[in-house]
Amino acid sequence: MNYPNGSKPKPVNKPVIQTKKAVKAHLGIDFEDMINQSNAYYLQNDLCVVYKKPTPIRITKVDYPSRNRARITEAFYQVPSTTDYNGIYKGKYIDFEAKSCNGKSFSFSHIYEHQIAHLDKVRKHGGISFLIILFNDYKEVFLLDALHLVELYEDAKKGGRKSIPYSYFVEHGTKISLGINPVVDYLKAIDVVFFRN
Amino acid sequence: MNYPNGSKPKPVNKPVIQTKKAVKAHLGIDFEDMINQSNAYYLQNDLCVVYKKPTPIRITKVDYPSRNRARITEAFYQVPSTTDYNGIYKGKYIDFEAKSCNGKSFSFSHIYEHQIAHLDKVRKHGGISFLIILFNDYKEVFLLDALHLVELYEDAKKGGRKSIPYSYFVEHGTKISLGINPVVDYLKAIDVVFFRN
Repeated sequence: MNYPNGSKPKPVNKPVIQTKKAVKAHLGIDFEDMINQSNAYYLQNDLCVVYKKPTPIRITKVDYPSRNRARITEAFYQVPSTTDYNGIYKGKYIDFEAKSCNGKSFSFSHIYEHQIAHLDKVRKHGGISFLIILFNDYKEVFLLDALHLVELYEDAKKGGRKSIPYSYFVEHGTKISLGINPVVDYLKAIDVVFFRN
Repeated sequence: MNYPNGSKPKPVNKPVIQTKKAVKAHLGIDFEDMINQSNAYYLQNDLCVVYKKPTPIRITKVDYPSRNRARITEAFYQVPSTTDYNGIYKGKYIDFEAKSCNGKSFSFSHIYEHQIAHLDKVRKHGGISFLIILFNDYKEVFLLDALHLVELYEDAKKGGRKSIPYSYFVEHGTKISLGINPVVDYLKAIDVVFFRN
């Protein structure tokens, strides 16, 4: 969502085309990029205002080679306090984490406990919170309401299953279309899950 | 809001005390810290869920001195895409920028045009957006509805005043109490401006 050199992606007016080829074309790019491109498309078309939060970095050393330009010479990645994405859609606060996984299930080891707690908190405050997951092996993307995620996580803590199987997403999640623009059309899934009436 | 070493601020049950001493005590700390402390207090007391977005950094070189620890050896600050703070309060999406200024007016040179546009966009999508400003010389903090900020900025672009005088904030803004906990009680000002009925 940052265009440091001022080059913005061109607005696209093409209809959404969902083909095997389109999906295949996406396999080469990172899932985060796919979500970011979708957000850029949504923003250009004024459908929602959602951004990826920057990665938190702890800066320990900075050089000033020129007056206006600070050069960071030592820094470390930090654990994010919350989730990767938040913003506003249809007047509602939305908040989600996007993950891709290999194999037949999504392991809780790939998400922080405090991120699940954050999604739960957002839900309790009247926001819309969920997980978006890409199953690489199935080439399928799902939205899962945080309600389910929290429930399963609580079960896992009590000795239940430490991962969420693909079949659970098929049954309780909502499939998200992959296309050209938007790449990951998650707003449609939000409409189905959270704006049903 | 990041507690990288796992040390969280202790929950505080003290009543809000607003004294000259309290205000004076804050003068030594950064305004951003004051807002962050307030957010931490609000979070602990489950009043809202608001976080500062991490500073965006463009990473150009990374070392891996040990398996688990990446050390960034060259990186640069980037211009933020949006504002510093967003989250949810009373079920509504809130979004704001916090600034401190010296002298008798706040100059538009201290805020990016795209940040003002972002606040305007949030407003149009049904969110609550505003500016929080600390006048160092007056030791006073105000909340200004983005509606006013956008209006004045449009005027400025058409040849109007390039800054917003303190008196404007007194007249059209809402004063925010400074205290011990929360340090900057901006939720009270939100209640006044956006939840009047």
